[in-house]
Order: sequence, then C-alpha cells, then structure tokens
Amino acid sequence: MTEPFRLTASQAQAKFNDGSLTVEEYAKSLLSRVEARDAAVHAWAYLSPELVIRRARELDQTPPEKRGPLHGVAVGVKDVILTNDMPTQYNSPIYEDDAPMIDAGSVAVLRANGALIFGKTTTTEFAATSVGPSHKGPKTANPHDPSRTPGGSSSGSGAAVGDFQVPIGLGTQTVGSTIRPGSFNGIYAMKPTWNSISREGQKLYSLIFDTLGLYARSVDDLKLLLDAFQLVDDEPEENFQVNGAEFALLTLPTPEWPEPGPGTTAALKKGAELLRKHGANVEEITLDDSLRPMYKYHLQVLSGDGRVAFLPDYYAAKDQLHYTLVDHVENRHKLSRKDQLKAFDELAAMRPKLDALADRYAAIIAPSVIDEAPIGHGNTGDAAFCGPWTAMHMPVVNIPGFRGENGMPVGLSVVSSRYRDQHLLRVCREVGKIFELEGGWKGEL
Amino acid sequence: MTEPFRLTASQAQAKFNDGSLTVEEYAKSLLSRVEARDAAVHAWAYLSPELVIRRARELDQTPPEKRGPLHGVAVGVKDVILTNDMPTQYNSPIYEDDAPMIDAGSVAVLRANGALIFGKTTTTEFAATSVGPSHKGPKTANPHDPSRTPGGSSSGSGAAVGDFQVPIGLGTQTVGSTIRPGSFNGIYAMKPTWNSISREGQKLYSLIFDTLGLYARSVDDLKLLLDAFQLVDDEPEENFQVNGAEFALLTLPTPEWPEPGPGTTAALKKGAELLRKHGANVEEITLDDSLRPMYKYHLQVLSGDGRVAFLPDYYAAKDQLHYTLVDHVENRHKLSRKDQLKAFDELAAMRPKLDALADRYAAIIAPSVIDEAPIGHGNTGDAAFCGPWTAMHMPVVNIPGFRGENGMPVGLSVVSSRYRDQHLLRVCREVGKIFELEGGWKGEL
Repeated sequence: MTEPFRLTASQAQAKFNDGSLTVEEYAKSLLSRVEARDAAVHAWAYLSPELVIRRARELDQTPPEKRGPLHGVAVGVKDVILTNDMPTQYNSPIYEDDAPMIDAGSVAVLRANGALIFGKTTTTEFAATSVGPSHKGPKTANPHDPSRTPGGSSSGSGAAVGDFQVPIGLGTQTVGSTIRPGSFNGIYAMKPTWNSISREGQKLYSLIFDTLGLYARSVDDLKLLLDAFQLVDDEPEENFQVNGAEFALLTLPTPEWPEPGPGTTAALKKGAELLRKHGANVEEITLDDSLRPMYKYHLQVLSGDGRVAFLPDYYAAKDQLHYTLVDHVENRHKLSRKDQLKAFDELAAMRPKLDALADRYAAIIAPSVIDEAPIGHGNTGDAAFCGPWTAMHMPVVNIPGFRGENGMPVGLSVVSSRYRDQHLLRVCREVGKIFELEGGWKGEL
Repeated sequence: MTEPFRLTASQAQAKFNDGSLTVEEYAKSLLSRVEARDAAVHAWAYLSPELVIRRARELDQTPPEKRGPLHGVAVGVKDVILTNDMPTQYNSPIYEDDAPMIDAGSVAVLRANGALIFGKTTTTEFAATSVGPSHKGPKTANPHDPSRTPGGSSSGSGAAVGDFQVPIGLGTQTVGSTIRPGSFNGIYAMKPTWNSISREGQKLYSLIFDTLGLYARSVDDLKLLLDAFQLVDDEPEENFQVNGAEFALLTLPTPEWPEPGPGTTAALKKGAELLRKHGANVEEITLDDSLRPMYKYHLQVLSGDGRVAFLPDYYAAKDQLHYTLVDHVENRHKLSRKDQLKAFDELAAMRPKLDALADRYAAIIAPSVIDEAPIGHGNTGDAAFCGPWTAMHMPVVNIPGFRGENGMPVGLSVVSSRYRDQHLLRVCREVGKIFELEGGWKGEL
C-alpha cells in the first residue's frame, strides 16, 4: 500500500470517504515524512505536530454530513498569510514570533471547507526579495537536490509539496513567486486570475499584481481548490481534447526578457512535439513589439507600490529591512509619479490585447523559468518569464514533466485569458497527462 | 481660553510644544466632550477612556527629542481598520468582540509618528452597505441635527470630527464613504490618490477602488497626515494663489448621475462666484460622452469584487451578512466575467483622460453630495457624485463652507490628477479660506 503521505489530496479524500484512512492517520503519516526529511529540506517556518493532530481529530469527529468539500485536505500556508492559530513571521526579524489572531480570507475559506491547516512554510523576506530565506535557521533546499534552491519567494510551499510533506501549498505571486518554485520542484503550480481569490490577510506588496498561488501534485487537487474558492468561468464546461486543439507556443522577445537556458529550450521543443504528436496544432508566436515594455513597466509599478507597502515596516525598523525594500520606500531609483502612472496605465491597456491573443488558442504554452533550479540557496532564481501573466492578470499553471541537463525538473507554463481558470484546468488535465508520461522527468523521491 | 477639544490637531501640537498643554490634559478634554455628546451622536464602536489616558501618559513621557511629527494627534479609527489594542468589529455580528492584535499599515504609520489612537468609530456593515449602522446599539447621528444621518460608511469618523470629539478621523472610500460624511458633517475630508497609503489591514471590498480616507477640521491637519504617509508629488511646492488661477466647475451628466438638490446647486453657484470674485477664472464643464458609462462600470467592478471579498464571511455565516453582500457572492445580478472585465478595462482607459482634463486647471470643483444630510438614520445617502474620483484614483478633498435649505452643511469636492495630493492641499488651503469665510455656513456646535 502507498504510504498515505504520497497520496494527492483527492486520493486521500477517497480513502477518508471509504473509511480506509482517518485524517489523524493521514496527518501522522505527513508528520512522519516531515520528520524524515526536514533536516534536508527545511520547508517549515512553523509546524506544531500537536496542533496538527488536534485539528485532525476534530475533523475526524465531524459527522460525515457536516464534512466540507476539502475535508482533511492538508495545506501548507506560506508564512506571509495570516493564520489565527499559528505565528506569521514573514521571514523578517521585525515580526519574529508575531501571532495575530486572525485568518486570512483564503485560509478562512479553506477551513470553512474542512481543510487541515498544517503549518507555515518558509518565504523570502515579505515575499518581496529573491534572496533565499535567511533571517533565521537553515535555508530551504530543493528536495530533488538539496544543494539547489527550491525557488522563491514561496520556497517552503514549493519544496514541501514537491517533497510529499503536504499535498497542497499556498503561495503568493507578485512577479514569479508561485510559478518559479513550481517548475523548480517538479509540481503543479497555479496563479489564478488576479483578484479571483481574496487576498485579505496576505502581506501586501503590490495591490495590482499580488495573487494567491496554489501548489499541488495533480490537476484534480487544483480543481478541488478552485471550486472551494468558487471560481466560475462564463463558459460552460467543455469536453477538452488535445487532438484537434490549437495551441500557441510563445517565446518572449530579447533583450526585454532573457534567453531561456538549455533545459527550458528543450522542454519547449519537446512540449510542442508531444502536443503535435497527439494531434494538436501548435503555432509559434512571440509578443507584438508594442508589448515589449511590459516587464519594464511591471518593475516600475512594483517599485512605486513597494514604496507604499513597506512604509509601515520602514518606520518600525528600517535597519531590519532588506536594502531593496528600503530602496523602494526611499525611491532610490527616483521613479517619477508620471512614469509610475504611465507604466500602470500602459499595462492596463495591454490586458485586453493579451486576452484577445489567448482566446485564439486553447491555451498559450510558455516558459516557466530560465532553466533548472540553480545551485545554492542564496538566490531563488529569475522570475522574468513568470512576469507577463502576473502583470496581465491571466491564469497560469506550471505543468511539470521535463528534465534539465542535471536531471532536475523543468516545467512549462500554460496560460489562458482572464477568468478562464476552469477552462485552463481542463486543458491542463489533458496536457499534463502527456507531459508527465512522455516529457522525460520521473520525479520519484 | 478655547477648550482643548476644540483645537485642531496642529493647534493642539503648538500647545504641546510650548508646554501649555499635556497630551493627557488634551485627551481628558476630548473624553469630556465625548461624555457630554455621546448620548446624542453615538460615534464610537469602541472607546476605552483608561486606554486613551494610558497612551496619552506614555506620549507625555516620551522625551521631546524622540517625539514624532504626529505627537499627541488624536485619531478616531473607522472600525474596519485593524488596531492591535482594540477590537475590530466591522458592525457585523460575525466579528462581535473580535480583536486580532494587529495594526493596519495606516495605524502603524500613525503610531510610529506619535499619534494617539483614540478609539474605533462606527461604520456601516463592512463599510460596504449604505444602510445606517444597525447591528447593535443606537445609530450614529449627525452632530448638527441628530435627526439626520452623518452619512456613511465612515459614519462615526465623520460625526466625531464634526462634533469636536477628536480632531482627526480615518475613513475608507470605495464609492463615496469618506467624502459624503465630510460634506454632511461640515468638515474637511480627503480621499488621497488610490494606493498612495497602505491599505494593509483595512477590510477589503474592492482592490481597485478601496482607499483610506482622512478627516480633519483644517487643511493644516490634512497636511500633517500626508507628510507622515510620505505622499510626495513630482512637482516642487508652488506658491498657489486663487487670483489668476484656472478652475473647472464640473457638473456630472444625467441620467448617468442624479440631479443635484437645491443645497448643492446653490453651493456650486456660490463657490464659482466666490472664486471669480477673488480673481480666478472658472470654466463650466461636463464629462465627455465617452465617459458617461463610468459609474455603471464602477458598480459592475464592485459587484465582481464583492463576490470575492465577502466569500470568507459568506462561508462563516451567510445568514449574518447583509443581503446585498450575499447578492454579491451569489452573483445575483448575473454579471458575466466578460462584462466585469470590460468595465475594469474601460475604467483603466479613462484614467489618463481624466488626469489630462484635470491638469488643464488648478483643480476641478465638483459636487460632493446630492444635498444636505437626509433626515433619518436608516440610509446614509447617495454616493454617486463621489464615485468618479474613486474610480479614477484621483485625489479629492471635500471643503466645507456652504449651507443647505435646512441650515445643514454642504461641501464641495476639489479634485486633482493622480499623485498631485500635495498640490491639491495647497489649492484647498486657499480655496478653503474663502469658502469657510464667505460660503455662508457657520458650524458652531
């Protein structure tokens, strides 16, 4: 029998339903996995086995007719998202041991649906730097090669889900903080449409970009979450098949974006080949010249937003803030309000254009990251390829399945127009089967 | 000698500085005003005199060289904004006695600058309905006529500042929740540029509209606050004079907006006359036809945003939510994603157009409200005239000074383009002198 910790959330739920597994037994299996692996992976900023078991028992005691659609689904919560029974510390010395007694909107929805909030996962400082978690304790490592980064800023959620320590993780994304760790850890990662899930109680960096992110090891699990968050498309469910579908294979123009490395270049090529082999048409496209300033604008808006978001922390303890955040508050790069507004307005004008582009296809296939997870824990990698979908508010899923030159996972991004999240999952279910089976990466741990 | 509670914050600070008043003495004077008036006005959702006096003593004990720019400035905080030493209850039975031990970003900035966080002021439910505060206790009344509404949703902050119970109040605005009470209570109210002050820890309704609002009884006090929040324009300070300045007098087109009542019609006429008498040019304008759908789009985006924002509360206790919020979550009006996105994108496209319009003038003068505060406490009034500046992210100040047919205050809105908040205050300082002196309303209480 598969050890319970290896199950996806949906698989575990099937066992809760047929009575072959209790939530407590399941939680203990997850805790045993954490115990075995934590010294290598360090995915947790806070984890209380006693609290986990207490909550698991409460769930087991819930009468079947009162159990929610997420009954017993264990969730690691990025430590920039408030939880009313655990500290929220943001990997910042300013918030060490800080434990406000309040649930974020996302956590409240998960709990109301029966989820088991398992623990808090590591993050870069305020989810706003690309420097590996460093404030205290050892740095989070990639479970597939502990000498490499799991990515960031959602380092712990990506690593914990990739390492079978928990089936579901919450991340956040302001540039590439959900999708990048998804690719690096060989798992499904989803950034839904901007503002389709409440961001209340999630540390603020940018109002117009910050989005809750979701990690899982299957599309079924992502679907469970979208349904709990009541994401509904305009269109009814279609019966999507790869055979006969139209895809775009998007590369991003240089020098505005970096060149992909060999692992991602090979994944894009192989992904297109596999889709064609299964009967799809794949059109190679790039962005129109008018869209080239997108990433520059993204970073400009972010700088203006960081100026506001970190002012309270700056007043609290400027000397305990990462220098890039101090730079935001002090507007070190002398960004004018005029340029900030131009960037904000131009990005807004691009959004309907990208929707129209995406709607010509079943989905857009694009690179998730430059390449495999880099060696070392000091830098969590480059987020450039994730930026467009954050800036454009479009839903994106990282599908794992490919393999880099060093045997590490490489994923591809699959993208739809805004508020077609459920459609995107239907596409990803079929595409994911192909990429996982034939892409070349077997992520056994 | 003026009783301390009648002082503006800047005037009280002058007395702290010359040693003629302590923060404790000042706080006791404010508390005595509250005691005398609370039975009529009911502005407070939470107020602990013991806590106020303890905090005041701490401020008095701060050595002069460590005192902040807001030393001793007493602030009433709308009860949808988190405070780490008081409950935050949102006028919702779901959150009765809830006290999550965390400061909102705005409150943290104020405290770090030496402000005295005085108490929590009443709000409509989640700052998201126009129904008068009703969950528990008596309803907040207009201090100038307790048979009338103080407006909403920032009911208590507007009433408390208007009634000299506190010199500064924090509100929020998603349509007209700051400016409307400003006009109804005869005080200055400012909605700064969207996202120029951190909204972290402030109940979420709409990411793209929600803005922290500020109440005061003088422009000097608003300036104190903007400086603490580090709002900086691109342009250096100019020496603004009404004589020779160009203003626009804007009326909003019907039927997309309502007709103003007699009080507002007279205020607009008199305001223009006064500015002209003082040497300004005043051009009468209305919105271009392409901008007519603005308010419709505003309400559509709000409906989509409310669907997300109130889902956690809906799961927690649907039966304890106002039916309009349940309607949002259940999408009762069947708003499609397509229409929601169209509204979102079209509003975004309008923003640079409105900036360009505003930049042709020193400021735009526009109606704040339809008329004087209506009789009764069940409905907090119509927000239609406040909507454009919220939707367009533009800074707006309500300047008091006019008088309606029943002797109640009527204010006018003065508006600049985005991120010209400091410029706007310089204009309002001069315009406010004229309106207050010659507009006809003498708000003695």
